[in-house]
Amino acid sequence: MGLVNMDSIEQNQDIGSPIRLYDMELSGNCYKIRLFCGLLNLKYQIIPVNLFKAEHKQPAFLQINPRGQIPVLDDNGRLIWDSAAILVYLARKYADEQWLPLAAESMAETMQWLAMAENELLYGLARARAAVLFNRPWNLAECQALGGAGLTVLEQQLQKHDWLAVGRATIADVACYPYVVLAPEGGVSLDGLPHVQAWIARIQALPGYVGMPGIQISTV
Amino acid sequence: MGLVNMDSIEQNQDIGSPIRLYDMELSGNCYKIRLFCGLLNLKYQIIPVNLFKAEHKQPAFLQINPRGQIPVLDDNGRLIWDSAAILVYLARKYADEQWLPLAAESMAETMQWLAMAENELLYGLARARAAVLFNRPWNLAECQALGGAGLTVLEQQLQKHDWLAVGRATIADVACYPYVVLAPEGGVSLDGLPHVQAWIARIQALPGYVGMPGIQISTV
Repeated sequence: MGLVNMDSIEQNQDIGSPIRLYDMELSGNCYKIRLFCGLLNLKYQIIPVNLFKAEHKQPAFLQINPRGQIPVLDDNGRLIWDSAAILVYLARKYADEQWLPLAAESMAETMQWLAMAENELLYGLARARAAVLFNRPWNLAECQALGGAGLTVLEQQLQKHDWLAVGRATIADVACYPYVVLAPEGGVSLDGLPHVQAWIARIQALPGYVGMPGIQISTV
Repeated sequence: MGLVNMDSIEQNQDIGSPIRLYDMELSGNCYKIRLFCGLLNLKYQIIPVNLFKAEHKQPAFLQINPRGQIPVLDDNGRLIWDSAAILVYLARKYADEQWLPLAAESMAETMQWLAMAENELLYGLARARAAVLFNRPWNLAECQALGGAGLTVLEQQLQKHDWLAVGRATIADVACYPYVVLAPEGGVSLDGLPHVQAWIARIQALPGYVGMPGIQISTV
């Protein structure tokens, strides 16, 4: 496995697939979906959306997602926006309960970490990365502090457990992994977080794992 | 129905209930759970947590929720943190699929609006309210703009549909309602959003509805 496993990404792309992903390669939110498709061995085709050209704010795209964000999944004409909702959709549609258990306690446990992914990790780590890489106008120190608080909670959890929820890999891990592993791009170090790093290695060893540009931590 | 239906809140409190809610009355995230318990006619007891005294950052509370946030639900010893995860838990544990459908398409549709609640509404509307009411150090104009963008998406959706997802009231509505109806406290007006206001009235007419202090928009 190299730093960026582009071969695997390409293996999951199929221009004949009825599943289409509105995507930009550098987006960690889009990567959540590419990663999960890899883990599910699900073929899809990519429809590139260039955020730098603000294609996601054009009227044509706002018809597809009124929030003006990527990723969006088009499954044979059914449109689903939001990365967490897409993970839930794919888990329910194309996998058994392995990736999203349905029992109240187990589902809630999984959802707790999806919430972490949309809060501390997105408004902390992802925004810090966007401030550094893409010059977005966020308060970098504030974002780094929020992201760091999230990482502390993850480290505590992963000190006691191999996976974030229910004792196995679930969409909780898929949702949290991208902006954690990309955190150094936003100036947030993963040094001193050995259990987070061990979890990163476990994810990278999952069958079907795919990488993305910018992942600096790799076990091989 | 008055501006604040405190009678109904008290009707749902029962100091003998095995369901305990770590709560502060002025928290919109906690109100999501009180509201849903009202709609489910579920009794619970409240354990007050005073955010102004930073009780949520004390070691004893961090044992309960490592994120240091409320609400937390304690259901007979089972702890669940995060408002969205608690809504999912209660819907799966104490209601049928009415409030959270399990089919891939319907569940994803519901989850889209839970994501909206944790993004534009929480980091927009809720932060704007916290900046105005509680002097929190957020950039007010930025929060108001983000929240306003979320309201625009809600207005578009509610122009076409009575409820946010799957044609009936679900946890999508419960998750989005609190910080929408409290938006004026953060200086974000709901004038000019007639479909959002009609949806507010529909929620307030649901059997078991309970209010909270600060809700300025009421249909009666």
